Amino acid sequence: MDFKEKIAIIPNFPKEGISFKDITPLIGDGKAFQELIDTMAKKLKELKVDYIAGPEARGFIFGVPLAYALGVGFIPIRKPGKLPQETVSITYDLEYGTDTLEIHKNAFKKGDRVALVDDLLATGGTISACAKLIELAGGEVASIDFMIELTELRGRDKLEGYHVESMVQYDI
Amino acid sequence: MDFKEKIAIIPNFPKEGISFKDITPLIGDGKAFQELIDTMAKKLKELKVDYIAGPEARGFIFGVPLAYALGVGFIPIRKPGKLPQETVSITYDLEYGTDTLEIHKNAFKKGDRVALVDDLLATGGTISACAKLIELAGGEVASIDFMIELTELRGRDKLEGYHVESMVQYDI
Repeated sequence: MDFKEKIAIIPNFPKEGISFKDITPLIGDGKAFQELIDTMAKKLKELKVDYIAGPEARGFIFGVPLAYALGVGFIPIRKPGKLPQETVSITYDLEYGTDTLEIHKNAFKKGDRVALVDDLLATGGTISACAKLIELAGGEVASIDFMIELTELRGRDKLEGYHVESMVQYDI
Repeated sequence: MDFKEKIAIIPNFPKEGISFKDITPLIGDGKAFQELIDTMAKKLKELKVDYIAGPEARGFIFGVPLAYALGVGFIPIRKPGKLPQETVSITYDLEYGTDTLEIHKNAFKKGDRVALVDDLLATGGTISACAKLIELAGGEVASIDFMIELTELRGRDKLEGYHVESMVQYDI
């Protein structure tokens, strides 16, 4: 299946000039979504990961069913104040201002192999912060997997040294 | 499996006097999480639902793998400004203040059978707003399914007339 057929392009959302890639038609189509997750799971199976991790909220949409399909645990990366146990946190720059994400400090045993999953690779700021969080929590980032990659924004440059995959690519 | 063994009780989180039910050990254990989702999916299969819907972010953790397991689409219920297509929204009361949730207006065809899934039934305010949203978007709420129910808070009273299930119950 060409998964792009199930992604809606919404002009000028969330602001003027942005061409938003809307995944809701894809996740709303049960058969297409199963095929997508099965395809991602097949690739990850070879890497023998111990965990999937992903940032809220859209990282959960792809990461949790992948963890279920592979039979491995899912480790959430969340905004401050949401995780109840002891956390490690990271603050990173956005276009305007900063953002902070947290992970449970005891999430991994040293050397656990973790696949980091999110919906979209844009400039790579959020996901490189997530990769550092996984390492701070004792895990090893075995793979970083996206549904969508916006290639023109060169997010891969921020992820040098990691194994990076994306299911569909757009050059705008 | 007794799923309660995989739920951590965190005293005084997020504030003094609250005994927080932490699901991260459960979703972090691949085998336990598979058993949980398979158990929930088996119940829902009999109801022949067309879609799963759930509110961000923790509703995604249970709802999306359930949709994947059943081979049906997942419809996200989100905070304002996150969904890019035309939405219907609902504003509802919290203990202090109000909150608003949205769903895509075109999410369902009239009469589509929808299972609404979330992590926790407490007072039932959020989930009854979600049920109304599904109906506003043309769906029929065939089932409301929780991982955890806090029975003392009597959230079921707000969900009269709906088919409600929970996997584990706590009376505190």
